[in-house]
Amino acid sequence: MTTTLMTKEKMTEAIIARKIEKGLSWETMGADLGMSPVWLTSACLGMNSAPTEKAAAIAEYLGFGAEMTKALEAFPTKVWDQAVPTDPLIYRLYEIVGVYGDTLKEVIQEKFGDGIMSAIDFSMEVDKIEDPKGDRVLLTLNGKFLPYKSW
Amino acid sequence: MTTTLMTKEKMTEAIIARKIEKGLSWETMGADLGMSPVWLTSACLGMNSAPTEKAAAIAEYLGFGAEMTKALEAFPTKVWDQAVPTDPLIYRLYEIVGVYGDTLKEVIQEKFGDGIMSAIDFSMEVDKIEDPKGDRVLLTLNGKFLPYKSW
Amino acid sequence: MTTTLMTKEKMTEAIIARKIEKGLSWETMGADLGMSPVWLTSACLGMNSAPTEKAAAIAEYLGFGAEMTKALEAFPTKVWDQAVPTDPLIYRLYEIVGVYGDTLKEVIQEKFGDGIMSAIDFSMEVDKIEDPKGDRVLLTLNGKFLPYKSW
Amino acid sequence: MTTTLMTKEKMTEAIIARKIEKGLSWETMGADLGMSPVWLTSACLGMNSAPTEKAAAIAEYLGFGAEMTKALEAFPTKVWDQAVPTDPLIYRLYEIVGVYGDTLKEVIQEKFGDGIMSAIDFSMEVDKIEDPKGDRVLLTLNGKFLPYKSW
Amino acid sequence: MTTTLMTKEKMTEAIIARKIEKGLSWETMGADLGMSPVWLTSACLGMNSAPTEKAAAIAEYLGFGAEMTKALEAFPTKVWDQAVPTDPLIYRLYEIVGVYGDTLKEVIQEKFGDGIMSAIDFSMEVDKIEDPKGDRVLLTLNGKFLPYKSW
Amino acid sequence: MTTTLMTKEKMTEAIIARKIEKGLSWETMGADLGMSPVWLTSACLGMNSAPTEKAAAIAEYLGFGAEMTKALEAFPTKVWDQAVPTDPLIYRLYEIVGVYGDTLKEVIQEKFGDGIMSAIDFSMEVDKIEDPKGDRVLLTLNGKFLPYKSW
Amino acid sequence: MTTTLMTKEKMTEAIIARKIEKGLSWETMGADLGMSPVWLTSACLGMNSAPTEKAAAIAEYLGFGAEMTKALEAFPTKVWDQAVPTDPLIYRLYEIVGVYGDTLKEVIQEKFGDGIMSAIDFSMEVDKIEDPKGDRVLLTLNGKFLPYKSW
Amino acid sequence: MTTTLMTKEKMTEAIIARKIEKGLSWETMGADLGMSPVWLTSACLGMNSAPTEKAAAIAEYLGFGAEMTKALEAFPTKVWDQAVPTDPLIYRLYEIVGVYGDTLKEVIQEKFGDGIMSAIDFSMEVDKIEDPKGDRVLLTLNGKFLPYKSW
Amino acid sequence: MTTTLMTKEKMTEAIIARKIEKGLSWETMGADLGMSPVWLTSACLGMNSAPTEKAAAIAEYLGFGAEMTKALEAFPTKVWDQAVPTDPLIYRLYEIVGVYGDTLKEVIQEKFGDGIMSAIDFSMEVDKIEDPKGDRVLLTLNGKFLPYKSW
Amino acid sequence: MTTTLMTKEKMTEAIIARKIEKGLSWETMGADLGMSPVWLTSACLGMNSAPTEKAAAIAEYLGFGAEMTKALEAFPTKVWDQAVPTDPLIYRLYEIVGVYGDTLKEVIQEKFGDGIMSAIDFSMEVDKIEDPKGDRVLLTLNGKFLPYKSW
Repeated sequence: MTTTLMTKEKMTEAIIARKIEKGLSWETMGADLGMSPVWLTSACLGMNSAPTEKAAAIAEYLGFGAEMTKALEAFPTKVWDQAVPTDPLIYRLYEIVGVYGDTLKEVIQEKFGDGIMSAIDFSMEVDKIEDPKGDRVLLTLNGKFLPYKSW
Repeated sequence: MTTTLMTKEKMTEAIIARKIEKGLSWETMGADLGMSPVWLTSACLGMNSAPTEKAAAIAEYLGFGAEMTKALEAFPTKVWDQAVPTDPLIYRLYEIVGVYGDTLKEVIQEKFGDGIMSAIDFSMEVDKIEDPKGDRVLLTLNGKFLPYKSW
Repeated sequence: MTTTLMTKEKMTEAIIARKIEKGLSWETMGADLGMSPVWLTSACLGMNSAPTEKAAAIAEYLGFGAEMTKALEAFPTKVWDQAVPTDPLIYRLYEIVGVYGDTLKEVIQEKFGDGIMSAIDFSMEVDKIEDPKGDRVLLTLNGKFLPYKSW
Repeated sequence: MTTTLMTKEKMTEAIIARKIEKGLSWETMGADLGMSPVWLTSACLGMNSAPTEKAAAIAEYLGFGAEMTKALEAFPTKVWDQAVPTDPLIYRLYEIVGVYGDTLKEVIQEKFGDGIMSAIDFSMEVDKIEDPKGDRVLLTLNGKFLPYKSW
Repeated sequence: MTTTLMTKEKMTEAIIARKIEKGLSWETMGADLGMSPVWLTSACLGMNSAPTEKAAAIAEYLGFGAEMTKALEAFPTKVWDQAVPTDPLIYRLYEIVGVYGDTLKEVIQEKFGDGIMSAIDFSMEVDKIEDPKGDRVLLTLNGKFLPYKSW
Repeated sequence: MTTTLMTKEKMTEAIIARKIEKGLSWETMGADLGMSPVWLTSACLGMNSAPTEKAAAIAEYLGFGAEMTKALEAFPTKVWDQAVPTDPLIYRLYEIVGVYGDTLKEVIQEKFGDGIMSAIDFSMEVDKIEDPKGDRVLLTLNGKFLPYKSW
Repeated sequence: MTTTLMTKEKMTEAIIARKIEKGLSWETMGADLGMSPVWLTSACLGMNSAPTEKAAAIAEYLGFGAEMTKALEAFPTKVWDQAVPTDPLIYRLYEIVGVYGDTLKEVIQEKFGDGIMSAIDFSMEVDKIEDPKGDRVLLTLNGKFLPYKSW
Repeated sequence: MTTTLMTKEKMTEAIIARKIEKGLSWETMGADLGMSPVWLTSACLGMNSAPTEKAAAIAEYLGFGAEMTKALEAFPTKVWDQAVPTDPLIYRLYEIVGVYGDTLKEVIQEKFGDGIMSAIDFSMEVDKIEDPKGDRVLLTLNGKFLPYKSW
Repeated sequence: MTTTLMTKEKMTEAIIARKIEKGLSWETMGADLGMSPVWLTSACLGMNSAPTEKAAAIAEYLGFGAEMTKALEAFPTKVWDQAVPTDPLIYRLYEIVGVYGDTLKEVIQEKFGDGIMSAIDFSMEVDKIEDPKGDRVLLTLNGKFLPYKSW
Repeated sequence: MTTTLMTKEKMTEAIIARKIEKGLSWETMGADLGMSPVWLTSACLGMNSAPTEKAAAIAEYLGFGAEMTKALEAFPTKVWDQAVPTDPLIYRLYEIVGVYGDTLKEVIQEKFGDGIMSAIDFSMEVDKIEDPKGDRVLLTLNGKFLPYKSW
C-alpha cells in the first residue's frame, strides 16, 4: 500500500531517466551525496525508504521537487516476482544461498549461539579488487546478530 | 551420481558425530588444518569436494581412514530441497537476494560492465564484530567477475 | 544439520510418549517448570533450542538423562513442509496473515516508522476467555520493533 | 464479484489520496470515528465490508458521497497473490505461523478441545510498548473457539 | 503432532482390515452404532476425532481395546498432499468448487449477508436417488453461517 | 475461445450493473424467470451457457438485446486462477473437499460401486435454515453417478 | 483408501514379475482373455478395477489365487505424482493436450453442443500402422458426450 | 517471437468474428477448403502455421488480404498458461493422460520397441458416433513412431 | 532495471519489423555484419548486450539511429517466464537437459575434474546437415571450464 | 513401469561400484566397447535402454551376467525430480535453454522451416579443447529436424 501520490515505479523511472541524461553513476551520486552507493541505489529502485533529509537531498541533487522527496520517503512494500530468480547475476547469489546456506548456519551459530543475522539492521558494500587474472567482486554484508530468547 | 562407496550423507553423519565426541568446533578444525572454516564446513556437509591432500588431512585429523578420504574427494551433486528456504537464518539470506538483487546488478555492472560474479571461482568468510549494542555478523563474499562475450 | 546424536524427531516422540504416560499437560509442565507453556511446547516440538539450564530442568522433570538435555539444547533447523498449511487450526492463522497482512503493515508502520516486528526477539501467549456465547482464544504476540537503517 | 459500481481498488486509492491530503492517520481516524484502527484500515484497504452506518460515517468523515458508502459496504472477495509473502513485515508473520503453528495447535487444543480459533468471528489490536532497549509491537488476536462436532 | 501412541495411520489400517474381515460396510456400521456413516468414515480414516463415548463404542464394536479408543479420540492434524486432487471422484468435487465458487459466494452472501459457511460446525450426508436413466448421488452439506463482525 | 462478439467478462459487468440499478436479487430473478438462482447466477457470471430460450428470457427481463442473448448462449471456457482459493467462503468449500474427499470416495463407492459423481449432469441448491443459535447454510449437490466400464 | 489386504502396488509387482517369467505380452494376454489390451494393462497397473469375473479370470490365467482377484477388484485411488509428466512418451501426450486443447474444445462443442467427452464412460485402443517411411501409432479414444444441463 | 506484423492473437480474433458474421462452422470451412477441420481450427487459433498456399486459401475464403496470409503462415510460439487445465472438456483429456499414461507406455513400447509417438509428425480427427444411449466422441490420434537410437 | 530510454521490448519489435520489411534473415545479417547469427539474434531479442561498436554497426545496417545503438548496448535483465517451457522446439532442449543432465555431469567432470561449463564465457553455433533421410540440426556449445577452488 | 526384475536403480549402483573397483572411466569403457561415452553413461545411469547386443557386451565387460543384460535392455521411464535443477553444472545447461531458447527457435526455424530438433533421433558428444587461458568444454548436439505437417 503506497502512501504517496507518485508511485515507486514512476519514481524509479524518472530517476533512471534523469541519471542517464546527466551521465551520472551510482558511485558518483553516492560520493557527492555522502551516501553508500548500494543503499542509494536500493532507495532509488524503491526497495528502501529514505529518511526525510536524505530524500530531500537526493531529489534536489537530481533536480526534482517535493513530490519526489515524498516518493523517496514512502515506506515500500517489498515484492519480488520470481521465487527463483532467472537473471544470471542474481541467480548466482541465490545459488550461493542454496549451496552455502547450511554451512553458514553451522559457522554463524557456532560463533554466536542460536539466532540469525538481521536483514533489517543491515548494510552491504560492493568493492572491486583488480587482479591481472581477472578482477574480483567483493561483497560485504554486515548484519546485527539477533539471538533467540526463551520466555 | 556419487562415485564413491560411502555416500556424502553417511560421510557427514560420521564427521558430525566425531566432531561432537571430540568437542571440536569448525573454527578450531580450520585453524589446526590451515583451511578456511567456511570451506571446511561446506566440504564436511558434502557441498564441496576436497582436493586429495586436503581430504586426507581432514580424514586423518578426525581419525578416519581411506574411505573417508574418498568420500571427501568425491564430486558432489549439489541439491537443495526448498526453493524458498524456511529456516530463519537461511531465509534472511534469501530475503537479502530478493530485496537487493536488482540493486547489486546495477552497482556491480556499473563497476565491471555486463557480466556476473562467479559462484564457482568464489570464497566466503564469516567474522564476528563485537559491539556493545549487539554483536554483528560480517559476511564477505569474494567472486571472480566474468564478463559476457560476443562471438 | 543437527549437532547432537539424538535427533529432534526422536526427542519429540520420546517427550510426547512420556507426557501421555504421566498424564501431563503443557500447561502443568510450564507452571511446574516456571516456563511459558507456548515456549516450552515449541522447544519440545523441536522448533526452539532450550538454554542449558532449562534443557536440564525439562529433561529431569520428565525423567530423562543427559542425552535429552543435549537434544533440547541443539540449535534446530526450522523446516515446514507446506507453504500453505492444510490443518484448519493452522490455516486460519495463515488466512489472518493473508487477509490482514497489508493492514498490519499500514498500522504498525504508521505507529513505528519503516521497519518490522521481529520474529526472533519475540514471545507469544495463549489465553482462554470464557464466554457464555462461546469461549474465545486470545493470542498475544510480542516482538521487538526493528527499524530499517540507511547507510 | 463486486456488487458495486466503484471497485474496491478505486475506493482504496481515493481513500489513501484523501488521507494524505488531509494529513490523517489511521489512529486518528479510528479515534474520531469510534472504530478500531485495525478494522478501519482493513475496511479501507478493501479486505472487510463495513456495515451501512459505519460505511456512511467513514465516507462522510473523509468528504465522500453515497458511491463511497456503497463501495465500503460491498462484500469483498478476499484475494492475496503471494502464497508466501515477500514483504519483510508480512513475511515475519508468515514465519511465526510456520515456526509456531504446531505449537499453537497443541496448546489451544489442550485448553479448548478439538477445534479451531475462528478467523471470521475475530478481532485484532496493535499496541506499542515503549522500551529503552527498543520499542515492542504487541499484536492481540481474539477469535471465537469453534469446536468440531460429530453427527 | 499426535498425542496417542497408536498413530492415525496404523489405526486406519487396522480398522479397514477388520472391516473387510467382518464383511461390514460403513452404512451398516453407522446404522448399528447410531452414527452418520459419513462422520464415522471420516473418524475411521483419521480426519476427525471421536468423542470418548463414541470412540469406545466404535472400538468395542470392531473388537478392539483401549488403545484403539485413544487413537480414535486423538485430535488429528488434517493434511492432504495434493493441492489439486487427481482421483477423478475427488477431482469432480474440486471442479465444482472451481466452477461454482463465485456463484455460491454471490448466492450465500445475498441470502445471509457478508460471512461464510463454517467447515467446522458442519455435517454432511450422502444419499442415493434411484433413477432409471442412471442413479444419482445426493450430497447434502449443512454448515453454520458465520457473519463477519466489525470491531 | 469465445464465439461471440461480447465477451463473457463484459456480459457479467453489464448484468451486475443492471442488477444493482434495478435493485434485484438473484433469488427474485430466479423466481420471476422460473430458473434456479444458483444456475442463473452461474450463467450470469459466465461459468455456464444458457440455452437459447433461457438466454433470451434473461436478456429481455434485464432490458438487454440480442447481443446479450448471444453472450449468454456462448459456450464458456471455464477458468479459475487460484489452484487453492483464498476467499474465506470459497476456501471453506475447498477445505471440505480436502478433509472429506477420501471419506466421500469410500461412502459413495460403497453405495454405488466404482465410479464418480458427474460435475456435468449436475445441479445444486442453496437453502437457509433459520436457527436461533445461528442460521445454517444447506448446500445440496445432485449429480448423476457414472460407473467405470471395462472394455 | 485401499479396501483389500494386498495393495495395488504389490499386485502390480507380482503381475509384472509373472508376466516376464511366462514370457507373455499384454497383447497375448488380452487376446487369450478376450479383453482389450489397453484396459487389461490399466487394470494390472492398478489404475482401473476389474469386475469380479474378469478379476478372477486374470488371476487364474496368471496362476494366482483369491487374494489377487480381490486386489484386481478393489476400487483404486487414481494418483499421479507429476502435474507435468517428464517421460518423453507421456509428455508428448501432455503436449498434444496443451497444443490442441482449445482446438478440440472448438471442434467437439461445434459438433455436439456445450458439454464434454467423458473420461469415465470411455475406452481406448492402440494400433500399429506399418509404413515404409516409419510405422505409425494410431490411438483411438472413445468417450460418451455429456451435455451440460440447466436447472 | 512473432515474425509478422499482425499478431496471432489479432489474427484469431478477426477470424472468429468473420466466422460468426458469415455463420460458418469449422466443419464447413474444412470441407469447402479441403482441409481437416481439426488442423484448420488449430491454424486459425494460432497453434499451427499454414503452408503458403493453404494460408492464402483460408484468407481468401474468409475475405481477408495478404496480411492475414502472412499471419497464418507465421511460425507460432506454442504457449499454454495452465500446467493443469481447468476447463472441464480439456481437463478430461489431461486426466486421460494421467490415468492412462503408464498404460499407453507399456502397450505402445511392447508393440513398437523403446521410443515415442511423435507430436510433430502427427494428425488428429474428431468424429461423432450417434448412439440412442448418448452420442459418443471418437478422437483419433495418428503419430509417427520414433525409436530411440544408440550411438 | 533498464538503463536506456528505449526498452529492450520496443527495440526487439522495431528490429523484427524492419527485418521483415527488408526481407532479411539472421543468417544474412550475421554474414554482412561479420557476427555469429546466434549471438546477433540473442542481442536483437534482448538477451545479450552488444559492445558499442557492434551495437552501432547493427543499428546503422538496419537504418536506425543512436537510440537503437543505446538500446542494443544496454545490459539486459534476463528473464524467462516459464520454468518448464511449453513451445515444442524449446521443450525438446529442456528435455535433453532433464534426460542427459546427470550423464553430462559424469562425463564432463571425469574429463575436467570438479567444476562446471560456463554459461557466460560461452558461445553457440547452429548448423544444418543435409541428409536424404531427413536433415539434421547440429548445435555446438562451447563454454570455458571453471574448476571449483578450495580456500 | 519396469519390465525386468533388477531395477534400473540397483543396476546403476552395481555398475558404479564395479567401475570404481576396476578403476575404469566412461571414456575407457566407451573406447573399449566401441560406444560413445555419452550414450554409454546414459544407458548405465538408466536413462536409455541398450539394444540386446550392446547390453550383453557391457554386462560381460564389467563381469556381470544375464540379469544385468536384461536390466540394461529394459525400457526406462525417464523421470527427473527438479523442474529447475539445482546442481550448478546442470543448472548452467538449464540457464542456456532459458537465455537462448527463443534465439535458437528463430535461427533453427529460419534455416529449416517450422518444426523442431528431435530429442529422440538424437546424439551428443563431449570434447575437451585445451586452452592456456582455461580449457573449454565442447558439447555437440545432433538431432533430426522434424517439420510440422498440415493434414
